[in-house]
Amino acid sequence: MSDYKTYFAERREQHLNELKEWLSIPSISALSEHKGDILASARWLADALTRAGMEKVEIHETKGNPIVYAEHLKAPGRPTILIYGHYDVQPVDPLHLWTTPPFEPDIRDGKIYARGATDDKGQLFLHVKVVEAILRQEGSLPVNIKFCVEGEEEVSGTSLPEFLKANREKLAADAIVISDSSLLEPGKPSICTGLRGLCSMEVTVSTARTDLHSGLYGGAVPNALHALVSLLATLHDERGRVTVEGFYEGVPELTALEKQDLASYNPDEAKLAAELGLDTLYGEEGYSFTERTGARPTLELNGVWGGFQGEGTKTVIPKEAHAKITCRLVGTQDPQRTLDRIEAHLRKHIQPGAKVHVKQLERALAFSCDPTDPMLQLAADAYEEVYGKRAIFTKDGGSIPVVATFADVLRAPVVMMGFGLPDENLHAPDEHFSLDNFDKGLLTLVNYLHKAAGSSAI
Amino acid sequence: MSDYKTYFAERREQHLNELKEWLSIPSISALSEHKGDILASARWLADALTRAGMEKVEIHETKGNPIVYAEHLKAPGRPTILIYGHYDVQPVDPLHLWTTPPFEPDIRDGKIYARGATDDKGQLFLHVKVVEAILRQEGSLPVNIKFCVEGEEEVSGTSLPEFLKANREKLAADAIVISDSSLLEPGKPSICTGLRGLCSMEVTVSTARTDLHSGLYGGAVPNALHALVSLLATLHDERGRVTVEGFYEGVPELTALEKQDLASYNPDEAKLAAELGLDTLYGEEGYSFTERTGARPTLELNGVWGGFQGEGTKTVIPKEAHAKITCRLVGTQDPQRTLDRIEAHLRKHIQPGAKVHVKQLERALAFSCDPTDPMLQLAADAYEEVYGKRAIFTKDGGSIPVVATFADVLRAPVVMMGFGLPDENLHAPDEHFSLDNFDKGLLTLVNYLHKAAGSSAI
Repeated sequence: MSDYKTYFAERREQHLNELKEWLSIPSISALSEHKGDILASARWLADALTRAGMEKVEIHETKGNPIVYAEHLKAPGRPTILIYGHYDVQPVDPLHLWTTPPFEPDIRDGKIYARGATDDKGQLFLHVKVVEAILRQEGSLPVNIKFCVEGEEEVSGTSLPEFLKANREKLAADAIVISDSSLLEPGKPSICTGLRGLCSMEVTVSTARTDLHSGLYGGAVPNALHALVSLLATLHDERGRVTVEGFYEGVPELTALEKQDLASYNPDEAKLAAELGLDTLYGEEGYSFTERTGARPTLELNGVWGGFQGEGTKTVIPKEAHAKITCRLVGTQDPQRTLDRIEAHLRKHIQPGAKVHVKQLERALAFSCDPTDPMLQLAADAYEEVYGKRAIFTKDGGSIPVVATFADVLRAPVVMMGFGLPDENLHAPDEHFSLDNFDKGLLTLVNYLHKAAGSSAI
Repeated sequence: MSDYKTYFAERREQHLNELKEWLSIPSISALSEHKGDILASARWLADALTRAGMEKVEIHETKGNPIVYAEHLKAPGRPTILIYGHYDVQPVDPLHLWTTPPFEPDIRDGKIYARGATDDKGQLFLHVKVVEAILRQEGSLPVNIKFCVEGEEEVSGTSLPEFLKANREKLAADAIVISDSSLLEPGKPSICTGLRGLCSMEVTVSTARTDLHSGLYGGAVPNALHALVSLLATLHDERGRVTVEGFYEGVPELTALEKQDLASYNPDEAKLAAELGLDTLYGEEGYSFTERTGARPTLELNGVWGGFQGEGTKTVIPKEAHAKITCRLVGTQDPQRTLDRIEAHLRKHIQPGAKVHVKQLERALAFSCDPTDPMLQLAADAYEEVYGKRAIFTKDGGSIPVVATFADVLRAPVVMMGFGLPDENLHAPDEHFSLDNFDKGLLTLVNYLHKAAGSSAI
């Protein structure tokens, strides 16, 4: 390990200069005028993989942005690890809030500042340099390696899921490693073993053909807002549980180990409430904060609107009213069935004289993986040797559809080894990546590839 | 009566030309650039009252627009009738929907088209010409007459209520006659004996200091939209009744006579529902349409909003949500107490972790007057002799604060003798006034003044 410490220390400036070059390419996938930058970013990565010693480096055309693939399969009998990441970045607005321009990478206070620094060029770059380092130091890789890197992550593109399904054999692996997440806090590594699924809908309740005047009709005709609020109020009971029939089907009971893991990083709830400006937190009875967000499903109203929103008073009886609903899902809850169940509930509970129309929107499976899987346990060990603290296994409340898709299509454990920090402004001005985690990330990943090979000595 | 028929027939063109002159003045009270037109309209009316033979014609300055006063008090021992109306008009947008310009009065198909034709210049003009006709034909008036005409009706100004309260003795009368409403339909006169009061508020529910991400917090923090919809859903029970404690205090039970009057003009409810595009009407159990709108109070949501209203999905937990509420009040329900009661209800039922803030807005008393009062009965008789159909007594669901103010300050019955029609586009393009009702209105009012004097022969 000390060999690698020296190796990376000696080449640090050169590595950072290379990363700066990549970060200078404004590969914003959301803006079509950056299409050329997208291609340049993909080509830069392909070249870097070739320079690192990867073989069969390919740029696959898709209907959207290309997918960069590379492989190095010269470790027969050893596991195959597929490394996923993305070479596209978020837009940069509002530009005036950046201390230095987003595509002129700047190093200050032990951090590298640029759009994409932590999400995800900076983190993916670690893998490229780790492969290069091992090949230069040892002449061979301890495991088989595949890279599969997309350019549509920030726009939830469909090219990658299609590519995965069409190339199951080519991409087959014993583990998928993703570095696109964060430590819990500086010095506290974590590996996410659960992400919630998602489904969403827009609900419209309609009553009369036109808005009506409350002087002429008030009290004698259905009001779309009354119908909507009384309908939405039926979706939860007083204990904070979702009342939709069958909603909890597929939600696993928490094991003692999972409860222990979740308790290990549960915040001080009273302190958290105060920080958020709340008298108290609120949610499903009988669960802690991390259980509620990491291991329990939820149904949330994200928007409700109808009628008059201006100043003063308008005596209108609105003819329609709307709501946006999303659910976060866990376990094997099916997004489509969940949408159908909510729709049936709404139809059943709508008041006389009102009609309900549902537009189903997104669907994404939940992801969970068994923290006792050796590929995950070894990752936790790899962190421990570098950070002095074993990574803990967490369940995140958010949804990253691609993770569930990888697990589902390739049927392999997904090891989410992130090196970012929660406050590194991904998706915001002054995005940055800590150089301390840059250094430790390189060593952790070298360590992990050796451990995964079953070779304890490196 | 036949004398007056001839009198008005011979002078019809001249009268309409005079009315056209008044209608040509764009006295829009809502737009300050028409301040000069407001004054011109008041002066035109004052001149017309002088020409008609009224005495002591005055233009009273106020903080807002002037009030035109006139009196003719030469019938000792006879009742005094105060005639109220307004010389201001609504704005005219959207201008392109007018067939002829709003301030270039046009007669076609037996109607006079112009802004103010029916609301209220055209109707008030009838009273001016009636006074003039009686004085010319008979040399004296059968009753004492006062005119009190304001220029802030369309902007709910405060000058008139202040003027009334400051001039109780000057304005004292045995009846207040207002022609600013409609027949039920052509040939079916009605006299409104009830108007609902009004109170309104804006409700804000707030939770966390900022909007939160449903991936990180969903299921574990209060959501302002959930808190608002479950709060609003507590305001009514399943029978359509308002659940706020004490809300129905002051709501009178309907007498048999009132029930009969209300039944006499209740629409075919299934047909009305179909016309409105509804499967069914909806309201407080056990009451008919006209009872619900005319004689029962109501609490309506006029607007609700919070969170995301755009396209697609946004996984936000909103920090605040809003609602606009109005109540229509009847009997002696107190607007202020009602607002306070609703506010107390909202504070009591708000869920843990959320706060409710109430901004109280408008307050207006309900109006009702006894249809058995002789001044109302005589008005119904006056209609019958001209229209061949006795006016029926109705209770309207709307609110006209000035009516309640007149009744409250002057302690006299208010006789709402309208000659408009419900479809005459008041407040809309192509406002007009039926010349048939123009003609019949003149005769009805001549008739009424004589009946009010106790002199049956005219």
